[in-house]
Amino acid sequence: MLYSKLFGKTVKNAPSDATLTSHKLLYQAGFIRESTAGRYFILPLGQLVQSKIMGIVRYEMNKAGAQEMLSPVLHPLVLWEETNRTKTTGFELMKIRDRREIWFALGGTAEEMFVDVVRKFRPSYKDLPFNIYQFAMKFRDELRARGGLLRVREFIMKDAYSFDVDEENFKKEYKNMWNTYSQIFKKMGLNTIVVESDNGYIGGEYCHEFVVESDIGETSFLTDREKYNAHVDVALFERDDINSTEEEKPFKIVEQPEWVKTMDDNIKHYQLPKSRFLKNVVYKNRITKEIIIAVIRGDLDVNKTKLEHAVNAVGQLEDATEQDLTKIGTKRGHVHSWGHKGARYIGDLSLKTVKNFIGGQKEKSTDTINVNYGRDFTCEKLADIALAKETYLLETGKKLVEKKGIEVGNIFQLGYHYSKKMKDATFIDKNGKEKPFYMGCYGIGIGRTLAAIVEKFHDEQGIIWPESVAPYKYHLIGLDLKDQSIKSKVHQVYKELLAKGREVLFDDREDITAGNKFADADLIGIPYRLVVSKRTGDKIELKKRTEKSTRLVSLDELAS
Amino acid sequence: MLYSKLFGKTVKNAPSDATLTSHKLLYQAGFIRESTAGRYFILPLGQLVQSKIMGIVRYEMNKAGAQEMLSPVLHPLVLWEETNRTKTTGFELMKIRDRREIWFALGGTAEEMFVDVVRKFRPSYKDLPFNIYQFAMKFRDELRARGGLLRVREFIMKDAYSFDVDEENFKKEYKNMWNTYSQIFKKMGLNTIVVESDNGYIGGEYCHEFVVESDIGETSFLTDREKYNAHVDVALFERDDINSTEEEKPFKIVEQPEWVKTMDDNIKHYQLPKSRFLKNVVYKNRITKEIIIAVIRGDLDVNKTKLEHAVNAVGQLEDATEQDLTKIGTKRGHVHSWGHKGARYIGDLSLKTVKNFIGGQKEKSTDTINVNYGRDFTCEKLADIALAKETYLLETGKKLVEKKGIEVGNIFQLGYHYSKKMKDATFIDKNGKEKPFYMGCYGIGIGRTLAAIVEKFHDEQGIIWPESVAPYKYHLIGLDLKDQSIKSKVHQVYKELLAKGREVLFDDREDITAGNKFADADLIGIPYRLVVSKRTGDKIELKKRTEKSTRLVSLDELAS
Repeated sequence: MLYSKLFGKTVKNAPSDATLTSHKLLYQAGFIRESTAGRYFILPLGQLVQSKIMGIVRYEMNKAGAQEMLSPVLHPLVLWEETNRTKTTGFELMKIRDRREIWFALGGTAEEMFVDVVRKFRPSYKDLPFNIYQFAMKFRDELRARGGLLRVREFIMKDAYSFDVDEENFKKEYKNMWNTYSQIFKKMGLNTIVVESDNGYIGGEYCHEFVVESDIGETSFLTDREKYNAHVDVALFERDDINSTEEEKPFKIVEQPEWVKTMDDNIKHYQLPKSRFLKNVVYKNRITKEIIIAVIRGDLDVNKTKLEHAVNAVGQLEDATEQDLTKIGTKRGHVHSWGHKGARYIGDLSLKTVKNFIGGQKEKSTDTINVNYGRDFTCEKLADIALAKETYLLETGKKLVEKKGIEVGNIFQLGYHYSKKMKDATFIDKNGKEKPFYMGCYGIGIGRTLAAIVEKFHDEQGIIWPESVAPYKYHLIGLDLKDQSIKSKVHQVYKELLAKGREVLFDDREDITAGNKFADADLIGIPYRLVVSKRTGDKIELKKRTEKSTRLVSLDELAS
Repeated sequence: MLYSKLFGKTVKNAPSDATLTSHKLLYQAGFIRESTAGRYFILPLGQLVQSKIMGIVRYEMNKAGAQEMLSPVLHPLVLWEETNRTKTTGFELMKIRDRREIWFALGGTAEEMFVDVVRKFRPSYKDLPFNIYQFAMKFRDELRARGGLLRVREFIMKDAYSFDVDEENFKKEYKNMWNTYSQIFKKMGLNTIVVESDNGYIGGEYCHEFVVESDIGETSFLTDREKYNAHVDVALFERDDINSTEEEKPFKIVEQPEWVKTMDDNIKHYQLPKSRFLKNVVYKNRITKEIIIAVIRGDLDVNKTKLEHAVNAVGQLEDATEQDLTKIGTKRGHVHSWGHKGARYIGDLSLKTVKNFIGGQKEKSTDTINVNYGRDFTCEKLADIALAKETYLLETGKKLVEKKGIEVGNIFQLGYHYSKKMKDATFIDKNGKEKPFYMGCYGIGIGRTLAAIVEKFHDEQGIIWPESVAPYKYHLIGLDLKDQSIKSKVHQVYKELLAKGREVLFDDREDITAGNKFADADLIGIPYRLVVSKRTGDKIELKKRTEKSTRLVSLDELAS
């Protein structure tokens, strides 16, 4: 490719709102341009990288036995209604109506579509298992997009769906995909950590994220630096025992100075640590309007995702407003750990680790002390609804460390989550009986992977593409092009490299200084830079993007 | 690929509403399934063909110097408003709003998007020319979809957009794309006819369709079987002279029996041929509500598309209703060739070929005779608004023949149509001045091309894929698989072919008869059928899909 005719050349400055390195570099180097916030043009250089990433994904997926196909972009909304996902998706689902008044969803994922096409065939157990996938545009109506390709409103996702006769067979495929994903990312130079995570609106019982560690990542996970890696939304930890063997003292209503309002006030007043106090956090279910009060030990925080699972309301809880509190007869700072009519109480497991809690029924100038779970109050249930944090201990005694990362892929057990909700999502088993499929799904965000590669591989000067995904292998620079003999030599080098099937970007511009050409080459980040100039004589100067040193090679050497 | 695990197996019957061969065969052979009307799943076999078609298109486009990129699916509606295409698109444009209340179009083409991304760069003349393209899902909110992939509501289109400094340079690129397209279709085995056609809502001054001749095609074109090929919407023809040298007789209002109502009645009454009568056809502009009366010689028909161009209202005319006629003071059968207030009169060129027309001012029992254009009435303009038909003559004297075909691609001159409507759609010329781009655009419908291939290449038994786009090269069939030695032999053949990089679909099913396996192979249409059975001994039976005869070959022969 002649750089003079490439659409999407380098520019000096990134947009002023670009804060992430990948956003800045991909913009400046001419790989992407924003259409509207969160929707990007992938320019020719970017498309070459995207194609290579897709090529690696396709190769490894096919090798693992998966079959590529393609589903329509517009999903009949009736399918999403069949699984009730019009209500449970975390993102707002975009909907559109055609001229015949039929409603469609612009899907964020395509579970219903794939189940729908499979059930049209009414397969037998002999046709199973299979894993079918596509590369298709996905839509997420995010309230806030993030700079560059890391959190966007539309993007190409490789989404795969596996259909098995039972859990045992499914588990083999889950492991197969796990290994395939590790291999895919490794081929792109990415070291991924496999993190237990929350299945969210996708459903199912367990899932894992493939995460590239990065301080600018949006995924927070806890790790013991050995075996355990879990997203904060699911991370477990051992609740330390505070005083569970202490004798229960008599429940009391006590006077309390009016200045005692906050947790800090309480600590000062009672001279006791946070862990001895009861804390209440109030949520509302945006669908059912139900009020949920989470009761937890004072030193811990509630994790909303865990709480949503505890009350079977995934993606449905939001912070209660002052108005919501009024409805159950209280106000902020005066929420009781029991007794508000119209509220459901969910307790954290930590309530079992403390005897004689302070708090629980705060009024203007009184509160309760020596409050004991089981004796003085109970919740609808006790569950793990607490946010795990760095330094907390695992059951094994290992200390947790908090890390951030970019989620580039995920694999989900779906089990019967879709096949039991959708009519006829069955196969005929050996005995001629209809049975629901046991399913899994597997996603890779192509654009996000591209951005993650840039976040990992760059320096002050620009991008440093791993060879496997680089837009071109060679960046050929011609200098001193006013000299006809040099000009014809570099064009000759370009032709011969092309003839040998090499991928070459050739900076043939005649009115650009050497310094600017070198700077562009560093910014674009192609693995090998070649220079032909007066100084290089019969040879070609070769420099790796990752190294400082150059050496002179002959065209023959280069070609072999 | 093991056929036993392929998703998308053959079925006996096509859907009852499938009338087209390509629809039936692609359904029965397991290449496609309908999601909702006009929106298709491309199953794994279909996806392999689609990928090969896309591979050929990509290879030839790149070879021609075009650069692949990708635009967002959702087009900001403001861009379509900038060119006024929200009103002029022939198909209903689908629109969708995001949660931030921003409106988007689901584009049927992407001219505005590509101009938008290019203008962000403010290129110089040195950056031009370039031709950028994408493979992207396109949406057409058709009222009626057609069976299979021939007329659908969403489909992958390769759409390319060229940007040149002027018309002269553009013409080279137009020729370049013309040749590229011919080469693309040739590689797929398709013989295409390049047909002059109407630019419709795309705009610009001229364009050509690449048409595969086929009786089931929706494109009607006229050809002189030599040089001239033109869509009925643009086809020219010579209006034969009727009596233009005759002397003009005095204009007269004459009594006419009340039974004279239709053209046939007139012919009977006056004993004159159709060509001696005036005919009026009334349309309404659905945007401006304007009434247009087309006046034409009685033996000719009006072509609405030509008329739309004549009045600069592309995609906007519809048949007038009785109510519309009332508005201009008339009723059906009594439309005058002049004088209705509030109507615009457009005449066909044929009005010049007749002296002393009959008709023009029909009332209940009178009409006018000896009506002469220019003397007794004039139109706002005379233009070519007549439908060309088979047997009409060209200027060259050659007779026109009408043919039908499937439009698989098209190329459009756009000129300044977009760059003058859109702000800053300019480059900096040699003198530092801003100039609008001279543009062209170039489309290929991938799914329709796939269907066209099936329409051309099939027999009673099924599809006959040209090798360049076949899903696999070999269809390996194992028979007598209960015999372990045969079973292991055929699995060995499969492995060795794969190891040699061959594309093989292997029918490994053990409970299917030979007859059914052969029928499936014929239906699916892979170029070479291989059989391993008791009868084939050490050899493999080879049969081409296009031939009846088989022969025995060794694995070595096959591999070389």
